[in-house]
Amino acid sequence: MKHTEIDKFFKGNIKIPSYDHLTANKAKHRQDELTKPIGSLGKLEEFAIWMAGWQKKLKPTMKNPYCLVFAGNHGISNKGVSAYPSEVTYQMVENFKKGGAAINQLCDLANIKLSVIPIDLDKPTRDFSEGKAMDKNEVFSAMQLGFDSVPSDCDLLVLGEMGISNTTSATAISCAIFDEPVKLLTGIGTGLNKSQLSKKIKIIKSALKLHGKNFKDPIDILSCYGGREIAAIAGSVISARLKSIPVLLDGFICTAAASSLILFDKMILDHCRISHLSSEQGHAIVLRNLKMEPILDLNLRLGEGSGAAIASLILRAALATHNGMSTFTDAKVTTKIV
Amino acid sequence: MKHTEIDKFFKGNIKIPSYDHLTANKAKHRQDELTKPIGSLGKLEEFAIWMAGWQKKLKPTMKNPYCLVFAGNHGISNKGVSAYPSEVTYQMVENFKKGGAAINQLCDLANIKLSVIPIDLDKPTRDFSEGKAMDKNEVFSAMQLGFDSVPSDCDLLVLGEMGISNTTSATAISCAIFDEPVKLLTGIGTGLNKSQLSKKIKIIKSALKLHGKNFKDPIDILSCYGGREIAAIAGSVISARLKSIPVLLDGFICTAAASSLILFDKMILDHCRISHLSSEQGHAIVLRNLKMEPILDLNLRLGEGSGAAIASLILRAALATHNGMSTFTDAKVTTKIV
Repeated sequence: MKHTEIDKFFKGNIKIPSYDHLTANKAKHRQDELTKPIGSLGKLEEFAIWMAGWQKKLKPTMKNPYCLVFAGNHGISNKGVSAYPSEVTYQMVENFKKGGAAINQLCDLANIKLSVIPIDLDKPTRDFSEGKAMDKNEVFSAMQLGFDSVPSDCDLLVLGEMGISNTTSATAISCAIFDEPVKLLTGIGTGLNKSQLSKKIKIIKSALKLHGKNFKDPIDILSCYGGREIAAIAGSVISARLKSIPVLLDGFICTAAASSLILFDKMILDHCRISHLSSEQGHAIVLRNLKMEPILDLNLRLGEGSGAAIASLILRAALATHNGMSTFTDAKVTTKIV
Repeated sequence: MKHTEIDKFFKGNIKIPSYDHLTANKAKHRQDELTKPIGSLGKLEEFAIWMAGWQKKLKPTMKNPYCLVFAGNHGISNKGVSAYPSEVTYQMVENFKKGGAAINQLCDLANIKLSVIPIDLDKPTRDFSEGKAMDKNEVFSAMQLGFDSVPSDCDLLVLGEMGISNTTSATAISCAIFDEPVKLLTGIGTGLNKSQLSKKIKIIKSALKLHGKNFKDPIDILSCYGGREIAAIAGSVISARLKSIPVLLDGFICTAAASSLILFDKMILDHCRISHLSSEQGHAIVLRNLKMEPILDLNLRLGEGSGAAIASLILRAALATHNGMSTFTDAKVTTKIV
């Protein structure tokens, strides 16, 4: 493992927890004994086994799923890269607190505890097309907040974000990490028209010219292009890994935030699943690069953790069947002829 | 509308209820006022509007979702077209009754009332590679049972089936309706090996030679190739339509059963959604013919209504957001700049 500035988060944790293949194999064996043709629950079987491997439990639980929604403001918003003004970040945080947003309804439905964590909304990051978005201390501080926000009794972490203009930040990060062209990765975000989209592309291109694409440390890339909520997500992904907690990443922005960590370690996202394929056009390309498959494809592009909360319902279905079904022996059902 | 034998089910219901565009438009308008960028909940918005249009309610409900699992036995089972012996149909019905199967866990999770309806399990249909599977009275009787099984207070109907060898029946039905080649539509069902699959294809081909592909009435095609559970599903789809109840069809067999009704009326499945894309290979081709998109793609191939019960969770997410979110005005959130 390379030694970089992000090592600070792994101090005292020299060995990063890894997937428990022994428990996962036992879970696979259990799946094969349940009253269904082998493999017939498809990805549900895969998800249950994956949860078993990370939780190190033959029968994984979803007793304490938490959703953390981090919010931050972006200096680049002044360049008109979003269809909404930046005060909407604060207004939506208020809406989250009052229970009126999509993520509130979805967490209620999925029985997930929701925490909304606004980070210095009155201090937007600097316009990253003109300079670095944050200094390193600001990055560390946001990451640390994310890191500290993961409860230790959490058995599934659902991550989301809110930040007007943060698809711009996520696009720049993704272009740099995966060396993909700006035009290919830049989408309409909350709903830009054609000329606004062209402008957004131009601004991201100029930012990439300014800061480059060569980064060896997540801290560096987040300092150039990041938002505070994006850094916090990266911090919480690390925290979950150190606690062996499986993670559901939401859409494009969450994925970009988590992707910054592969600069540190290519396997660092093995405890994460992509909840859904966002209709933000860069997401599919980023996922292809990450070789990760989304659980759902519902044309969502809202953020807030909405897709991840919905995907948690699929994990519940996976665990309900894995934990609750009878075996062939218990149910006295004849097994396969051949 | 053509007058055919199936008209008997529509007696006294000369006008088949149709989608309520007025309520659907109001629901669309509501979606556009909720605190999210317009369209950002993607298919969730579409599903909520569709439910509104069929239930004729601006805020559709899922208070009384019912899952009906019909079970039947198939004479063609004697030809070795399944990896399991036909007594498994009865054993699995017992498993359903004791609560040990996948569908029990999934209905519990999704808060769906489950009814398991075995139909004359001791009277398998006749081997349809040698003659008609059922006479018309048997088809009517199974359809009527399906028709009568839909509770009138039901606000979402979730359909499933159990019947060893019923992918063989469903494949023959699908080949006939959509004029597709047997080889393309025949899959491994519960898990055949290569030589068993070849045999299954050969048997379906010979059956299609015997009964042909030209059918004008659902009753006829079900009589030649059907199973009792398949006919019951067709009956329950009609019943739901007459009551304006939206329907979630499960995988390949449910879809084939429902497809038989398009011989009667091409729009008769407008109140139905396909829950998931089965990994049974014929399903994708049938859906392409029907121009219907699956809600989920989880490589399921279990049946029992399992995929439909899982998809009902997505509909719950659609209704939770549609019914529960605040509007921009209520939440005092600034709307789009342009």
